[in-house]
Parts: sequence; C-alpha cells; structure tokens
Amino acid sequence: MITLSVDAMGGDIGLAVTAPAAANFLQRRPDAKLIMVGDQAQIQTALQQANAPMARISIIHASEVVGMDEAPQYALKNKKDSSMRVAIQQVKEGNAQAAVSAGNTGALMATARFVLKTLPHIDRPAIAKFLPAENDQLTLMLDLGANVDSTPEQLHQFAIMGNELYRALYPSHNAPKIGLLNIGTEDIKGTETVKQAFQLLQQSPVNFIGNIEANQIYSDKVDIVIADGFVGNIVLKTIEGTAGFMGGIIKQEFQRNLYTKFSAFTALPVLQSFKRRLDPRRYNGAIFLGLRGIVVKSHGGTDATGFAFALEEAYQEAQADSLAKIEQGISKKLAAA
Amino acid sequence: MITLSVDAMGGDIGLAVTAPAAANFLQRRPDAKLIMVGDQAQIQTALQQANAPMARISIIHASEVVGMDEAPQYALKNKKDSSMRVAIQQVKEGNAQAAVSAGNTGALMATARFVLKTLPHIDRPAIAKFLPAENDQLTLMLDLGANVDSTPEQLHQFAIMGNELYRALYPSHNAPKIGLLNIGTEDIKGTETVKQAFQLLQQSPVNFIGNIEANQIYSDKVDIVIADGFVGNIVLKTIEGTAGFMGGIIKQEFQRNLYTKFSAFTALPVLQSFKRRLDPRRYNGAIFLGLRGIVVKSHGGTDATGFAFALEEAYQEAQADSLAKIEQGISKKLAAA
Repeated sequence: MITLSVDAMGGDIGLAVTAPAAANFLQRRPDAKLIMVGDQAQIQTALQQANAPMARISIIHASEVVGMDEAPQYALKNKKDSSMRVAIQQVKEGNAQAAVSAGNTGALMATARFVLKTLPHIDRPAIAKFLPAENDQLTLMLDLGANVDSTPEQLHQFAIMGNELYRALYPSHNAPKIGLLNIGTEDIKGTETVKQAFQLLQQSPVNFIGNIEANQIYSDKVDIVIADGFVGNIVLKTIEGTAGFMGGIIKQEFQRNLYTKFSAFTALPVLQSFKRRLDPRRYNGAIFLGLRGIVVKSHGGTDATGFAFALEEAYQEAQADSLAKIEQGISKKLAAA
Repeated sequence: MITLSVDAMGGDIGLAVTAPAAANFLQRRPDAKLIMVGDQAQIQTALQQANAPMARISIIHASEVVGMDEAPQYALKNKKDSSMRVAIQQVKEGNAQAAVSAGNTGALMATARFVLKTLPHIDRPAIAKFLPAENDQLTLMLDLGANVDSTPEQLHQFAIMGNELYRALYPSHNAPKIGLLNIGTEDIKGTETVKQAFQLLQQSPVNFIGNIEANQIYSDKVDIVIADGFVGNIVLKTIEGTAGFMGGIIKQEFQRNLYTKFSAFTALPVLQSFKRRLDPRRYNGAIFLGLRGIVVKSHGGTDATGFAFALEEAYQEAQADSLAKIEQGISKKLAAA
C-alpha cells in the first residue's frame, strides 16, 4: 500500500480539482490510499460528489489555506494549520510516503524545507521535472527555480540527486546521460560557475556527457539536464511560451477561411493526437528533490486530469522507494567527494 | 545609395549561398550596392552564374577564410587578410555602411571589436535579434550570447542600445516597452545581478515595464527583452529546439497512416502557411550592437533565401541611420547616468 497526503485546498481552484482527481487516481491505483487535508466538511461533500472510494480515503482537518500570492515566510510563520503544512507533516510523521500540493510554489518549498529538512550533504533542495523528448523518451531537468545563483557544488548536488531519481524510476537506465546546460559544447564555454561545475561533474561517478545546448534538451543524447534554477525556470517558461505561440499560429491558419476550416475537420484526429502527446497535464508534477520526504508540486492552474498525473508522479516515486535510493546515492557519491 | 560589404566566403556553404543571395537582394533593392569580399575569381564566377547585376557589385580580393570552428583569437592574429576581416574594414574605412557575414560568431565578434572598436559608454557589444511575436509583431531580444556574467550596468547598456535600435527601425514605436527577463514579475525575484539591473532600469529614461517571464516574450506587452548573453542564448536555443521538436511531432502524426496522410494532403496549404510564418530564414540576421559600425551575423547554415534576409536586415539598419541614432541615444541617456 502506498499512502499519499494531499493538500486538498491548494491551487487556483482547490477541491473542485483535487477531489475528482483523487477519485480518478484511486480507481486507477487499487493499492493506493489518500489522506485528504483541509476543510473536513467541504472535502467530505466534494469527495462524495466525485464518487470517490471512501474506504481508501481519510480526511484530516486543517483550518487554514495558503494563498497563491502569499509570501512564503508569511505562510510559514502565520499559517501553522494550513492544508499545505499539515499535508507535509503527514510525510514527516510517517503517515504518508509522499505529499502533493497545487499551492504556491515558494510557500510549499519553504514549508517543506522547514518541516522535512534537507538531506545530508545537500545545501539546497531543487525542483525537477520530466519533459517530453524525442522517440517518446523523457528528459529530467533541474533545477527549475528553487534556487538562483547556485554554486558549482550545488549544481553537482543537483546532478547526483537527478541521477539517483532517474535510476530509481527507470531501473533499466542504470547510467543516465547527464548534460550540463551551457551555450556551447566546448569546456571553455559559459559562466565561471558553469565552468567549475563542469570540472566537478567530470570527476563525479556519474555518466557525465559534457555541456549540452538548449536545442538538445529533447534529444535522446541526454537523459538529465542540469542548470541553475534561474536558467532552468527560464527554459521551462520559454518552452511553455513557444508551444503556446506555435499552437496559436496553427489554430489561426486553420481558421483562415472555409477551405482551411474543412481541412482542419479532416485533420482533427491528427491535431488531437498531436495535442494529446504534448498535453502539459501529462507532464504535470514537479518533484522537490533534496528533502527528507517526497513532495510533488502540481501546476496551480491544472484541472482534475492534470492533478491526477501529479498524484501518479508521487505514487511512482514512493513505489520506487526513490527517497531511500537518493539518500544512499548521495552518501556514496557525494559524501566521498 | 546604401552599400553593404559582404563576407562572400563565410558560413558553412560560402559562395553557393552568398552569391545567389546577393543577386536576389540587389533585384529587390535597386538603391543598394554590394562589395563582395573573398576569392576574386571564384566570386566572379559565382555572381555570373547567379545572374547578379554586376554594375552594382564591386569585388575586393581577400586571400584567407576564417574556419567555422576556428578560435576567435587565432583568426584575429593569423588571418589578417580573411574575407571576414576585410569586409569589416570596408565599414571602418567608410566604403560600406554595414558588413554582413555568415562566418564563425566568435571570430566575427572579436574581429569586429578589434577593427571597429566599441561605442563610447559601452563596455561590451551585445548580439540582438528580432523574433516573431503575437499579432505579427516582433520582439527584439538581447544579449544572445556575446557576453556571459554581464554586470547590471552592462544589462542597462543593452537596454539603451536596444531602445535606440528599435526606435530607429520602427519610428512609430517611439517608446518601445522594455522588459527584464526574470523568473517572476515581482522586483524581489531573480539573481543579484538582475535585481540591481531592475533598479538601474527603473531610473533610466526608457519605457521600462519591469520583469518579464520567458513565457511572455511572444506577448505584445513587451517589445524588447533584456537578458545576459548566457540566458539569452539559452532562450534562443530553447525556442529552436522546441519548434523543431513540435514540428517533428506534427510530421509524425500526419505520417501515421493512410488517413492521416490524406488529411496532410488537404491541410497542405495550411501547413505551408504555418511553416512560412515561422520560417527561421525570415528572421535571419543577428545584429551586433555597441560597435562603431553596423555588423550583421547570418546563421552559418542558412541558404540563399536566409542570407538575403540578413542582407535586408543590414540594409534597413543602414537606411534608418541606426548607428548615429544609437550613438546619440547613448550619449543622451547613458552618459548622464
């Protein structure tokens, strides 16, 4: 049995998303249980409306909700009974193997660090995400914005954590290919920080393939892309913006006149299949790495389908025993360094 | 009359691209002349094959070519008679108003800096480029990789140069909206450098709209996006990679079976129009800003159509008298700071 704790009130929408997602997830995963945290009465009603299997759900009441624009430090100090915090506490206390929230990223990270603490040998947690790549592969990228101005040592720590997570989730990929995001492939390229991280990674017991340029993140040459959170977050948002821009232009062109509208009709199965393959909901679920517990952050604006994917991400991490494997990997590969 | 000097031998392909591009450009611009620099005999032959209007072309012989992978400092020291360098010298000597090359970016920048020198009050030149944006607008982005680890003052200089270039090329946009690329819109976000640049830009006599996230670079909320060259280059390559990845998936889906192939046939005009609108050749021509002369860098692997767009970019900058306007803008807005 895998038990996940869920911040039932978090996100732009809250229960209208988390409750049906919980129902959907539990149907697909008969060996899972959920702890739904938040307003007890509201959760009860929402779960019943969603026809959720109540036998595998427990509810823990929490009287507060962290606002989406609330300053992390404010939430940390003043909302000790928030659904977000109580959900994370379930992991700390061993009641759940992983926590999932669609709440405010900054507050979630600050709360998770405060409640769970970071792993030994890790300075700062990072945010990681699997992105779609060529040949139906996935690329793991980190950090996506937990830190700015990371040191070379921190970038090295991100690489070790990413390496262990990847191996835990995909045991057949025993030595994932790790690339350092840079503006050229030569080792003399980049910022001072990136150049020093290159040296550290070359000496590290991982499969370091060297610098990788941003047009190669979709390539199967690389499995894990390492970047500072400032750069990683900008890459993620550039992908989001570019996909939206291109999608908008396709739509415009198909709506141009009667003939193009007809061709859109005949191309509908293709367009739907295209949309489905790149559907950001399928890749929902950012992973907080470096904490003494598994925390998954769902996109704040996602719907029930997207939130269910974030639950699935947390389930798979718990199932793969990723936390223990990351901890072991760190103590083997990083403590020695 | 506008005269451009062309590194006829530069790029992955060289004359087989630059000669037909020259012919095409001169046909479209009857008030333009070209100085083609490189191997005299080869240029002569290539231009004749391309049916170029020889009356508006002069050829200057240069005995060397800078290799695409050659180290900038090596090219600078050892290839004093390269087609690239002699083309830039034409600008220095006043024989041409702008130089265009598809050669090695690093060598071109090093040579341009050495020959032309930087403008007063400018620490380092930057590379700028117009990108397609929503509602058929363009977004100017800089720096795209001339510098890494830029200081706040340098980012401010990029903003002033971008501002003056934009106003010179689009006089109807008298106060282009300048955004600072960051990982959030609040002014407390980002690296130390970006936070300090924010302060400088707020005090600067430009239309600074604040921080902008990377998913907004296509929005008409912003006309000019300012970033360090490390980040800017990674954004550009992320766009390239994402467009290629999405294009590849569309292609795969249309080739899936007989029905999808039929729908691709009916959708052909739409797909062609989509492709044409985002054709990178139409946006070819990166602008070196901050030098005492106009230099435009073409993508090394482009074809004659793409290279003609780079020539057109240089033509428009020269036509708009952008260099004098940038110099005036700098001395007014930056010297006072």
